[in-house]
Amino acid sequence: MTWPDVPLLAYKNDGSPFRDITRRTLMGDAPREAELDFLVRYFEVQAGGYSTLERHQHPHAVVILRGRGTVILGDRLHAVEAGDCVYVAPQCFHQFHADAGESLGFLCVVSRERDRPVLPSDEELARLREVPEVARLLRV
Amino acid sequence: MTWPDVPLLAYKNDGSPFRDITRRTLMGDAPREAELDFLVRYFEVQAGGYSTLERHQHPHAVVILRGRGTVILGDRLHAVEAGDCVYVAPQCFHQFHADAGESLGFLCVVSRERDRPVLPSDEELARLREVPEVARLLRV
Repeated sequence: MTWPDVPLLAYKNDGSPFRDITRRTLMGDAPREAELDFLVRYFEVQAGGYSTLERHQHPHAVVILRGRGTVILGDRLHAVEAGDCVYVAPQCFHQFHADAGESLGFLCVVSRERDRPVLPSDEELARLREVPEVARLLRV
Repeated sequence: MTWPDVPLLAYKNDGSPFRDITRRTLMGDAPREAELDFLVRYFEVQAGGYSTLERHQHPHAVVILRGRGTVILGDRLHAVEAGDCVYVAPQCFHQFHADAGESLGFLCVVSRERDRPVLPSDEELARLREVPEVARLLRV
């Protein structure tokens, strides 16, 4: 499942730090789908890549569809693989890493109306870095 | 991906007609997930089974995860397989069939607040049955 016919979107264009990750909106962007209150997106992180470390008020519902990797959720790491569901709670810093030598693909459902992500402040970063395994993995 | 640890729910308990289909809520039912405005459910139809033919105002965003089958959307049939995305528009009659000799598994995202499904009236059924290929497949 790679949806080659669905347009590839820029993962971000806000200058935030990420690596080797693509984004597609599978459902919700087409005009006829305007009645969906949410968007179903598909992200794929290539081996060694990662998403932006960020937080926001809107929650994420993530379902891992392929590969393996690790997710930073606040000050904890979680190994994930195809089939796993990840709930990203409001204001929880999160970063998806394809750190298992293979790509990591996942669906991420979000409300259509949502707030903008916030990058960590220096103080927040310092706090996250107090956890050694998080400090080793996070990229900012 | 079959989520054996996620509780199996009754597909329906309203007496509506269906066959060999199971339902799981993957995300949105847990108290800590109450901030999700939507639910991510997983349905699996065993070979030969089908969901209830129904319509409602809330749309569905469906992503087929396994197998093959056929979906009735209004007066049209659509063959589906893993990777396909199906948008079920408001008030569109729909029925998922695992009619390809294998089970059909799909995610279905819906708004948490939604209206109740409506079964077809005799008149609506008669109209659907005017389309021969729909008439052959539909089960009510």
